[in-house]
Amino acid sequence: MIAEAIAGINYPERPAQLYEPIAYTMSLGGKRLRPLLTLITCDALGGDVKAALTPAVGLELFHNFTLLHDDVMDRADVRRGKPTVHRRWNDNVAILSGDTMLTLATQHMCQVSKTVLPAVISLFNRTAIEIYEGQQWDMDFETRNDVTEPEYMEMIRLKTSVLLGCACQLGAIVAGADEEVQRAVYDVGVNLGLAFQLQDDVLDVWGDAATFGKEPGGDIMNNKKTFLLINAQRLATDDDALELRRWLADEYAMRDMKVPAVRSLYERLGLREHSHKAIAHYSTLALEALDRVDGMSDDGRQMLHDLIVELIDRQA
Amino acid sequence: MIAEAIAGINYPERPAQLYEPIAYTMSLGGKRLRPLLTLITCDALGGDVKAALTPAVGLELFHNFTLLHDDVMDRADVRRGKPTVHRRWNDNVAILSGDTMLTLATQHMCQVSKTVLPAVISLFNRTAIEIYEGQQWDMDFETRNDVTEPEYMEMIRLKTSVLLGCACQLGAIVAGADEEVQRAVYDVGVNLGLAFQLQDDVLDVWGDAATFGKEPGGDIMNNKKTFLLINAQRLATDDDALELRRWLADEYAMRDMKVPAVRSLYERLGLREHSHKAIAHYSTLALEALDRVDGMSDDGRQMLHDLIVELIDRQA
Repeated sequence: MIAEAIAGINYPERPAQLYEPIAYTMSLGGKRLRPLLTLITCDALGGDVKAALTPAVGLELFHNFTLLHDDVMDRADVRRGKPTVHRRWNDNVAILSGDTMLTLATQHMCQVSKTVLPAVISLFNRTAIEIYEGQQWDMDFETRNDVTEPEYMEMIRLKTSVLLGCACQLGAIVAGADEEVQRAVYDVGVNLGLAFQLQDDVLDVWGDAATFGKEPGGDIMNNKKTFLLINAQRLATDDDALELRRWLADEYAMRDMKVPAVRSLYERLGLREHSHKAIAHYSTLALEALDRVDGMSDDGRQMLHDLIVELIDRQA
Repeated sequence: MIAEAIAGINYPERPAQLYEPIAYTMSLGGKRLRPLLTLITCDALGGDVKAALTPAVGLELFHNFTLLHDDVMDRADVRRGKPTVHRRWNDNVAILSGDTMLTLATQHMCQVSKTVLPAVISLFNRTAIEIYEGQQWDMDFETRNDVTEPEYMEMIRLKTSVLLGCACQLGAIVAGADEEVQRAVYDVGVNLGLAFQLQDDVLDVWGDAATFGKEPGGDIMNNKKTFLLINAQRLATDDDALELRRWLADEYAMRDMKVPAVRSLYERLGLREHSHKAIAHYSTLALEALDRVDGMSDDGRQMLHDLIVELIDRQA
């Protein structure tokens, strides 16, 4: 349903430079996780999935808008194996077609009944603001080497997790659920999002190239401030601290030297276990929040449960 | 009221790099024409001006968001006599705080009664999309020298005028006016916008430095595709065509040579009269649309009438 709805979006033909990059971005695929969470939550709460479809697609448009603008800010060349919009076209095209996607997302978001429109639009706008704040914190962290674990968790909560919470809550709103249920499914999404992002950080270090779909170590090569790196900077002492600083400063480090070395260092510092514990912690919070949801069908609850477990145990 | 409401917007303190550029942008002033049109229209139709204030401020936030992103795209250094955001901070800050302004604008826009919310948000989103399209056409025109007058008018209709139409219609919606009245005030705004933008193009060529507040000729020096230039490219023949092409190609032209020469050329081609006729045409359409509006107080109609005449006769 989601794939069909996304493929069926009717973009105007002109101006071509505005709409072609949007169609291109939306055609690159991805897990479509956000609309999926909306539809499954809505269905599990006895709502009409068809009524949730257009706003769910709005979330996917919004998510892809943030990726498009983030790629300009991060100077990223490749996204889902293809050139990013600012590389294939240019920065101006990426800025303006991104702006257009944000408004298209809002238009999709507003295709709900009058009764639920105020709740939907206010959730969506609040979430969007949090995501910009998260992206700003992420950029601020790039020039700091004293980021704490709570600061990092707050950044990924804003940058990634609240959108999963929003996706679940959107499904609940469309299903006509009360505010207590809305809060519980929001917590499911946010905690799933935290576990999911940590798993992303872990896969980049210990993922298997074959199942991961791309060479691991990208974050290490880019000195990306992940859960691993901020903890390593905090915990490493003496020789380890020196070695870490050397790898971070070495602009010409070879991938097959730096990645295994930093990986070993993370392992010596116990960060593999530490991460797995953190992932288990947030997964448990997500599943506990799911248990708290009133009025959910057994089948629906099971489906959400399985989706959470699958996403967190994923190898890619 | 508008100045107070804008000064009273409460931006979060952190992340500072996200909100400081927004507060800076909104503090630079400007005519506040869009919220003004909303409040005057709402009042003239017997609506509650206080109820229109927050969405009216939303329009000003939106307008300033478009200027902020346009300044990145156009590499503009100065706006209202101050460094632009991407110059004072950097491109990333300008992109992300612009995105944030768009969502803040939408949040302000949604602060209306449930009854009118669907009409308001749908008008706002549709207008936003048209404005992005107008900006894209404007950028497309930069690399063309065969832009026709109808194409130019359609571009400025999208890029500038529909927002003035939207401002008037917003006031009418909040006042509870019917769709016929909404359409008529929308036409007032759009035609005012067309006349206003043409007047802008004219002032850059024939404006008086003292009253204009800045040195005229900026558009001429930048080879900006204005109403004058696209018509000159269409009408100039023989020696005039040759001279125009030379000035356009001369990257090192002195201001005190190029500006008077291009101005004379425009005058020889009759473009001063042609522009004034076009301005009079769209002003008349705006005033005729105003006459068509049912249920407007005499005072309100007079105030809108005077505002239109004042804006179009302005020298700055």
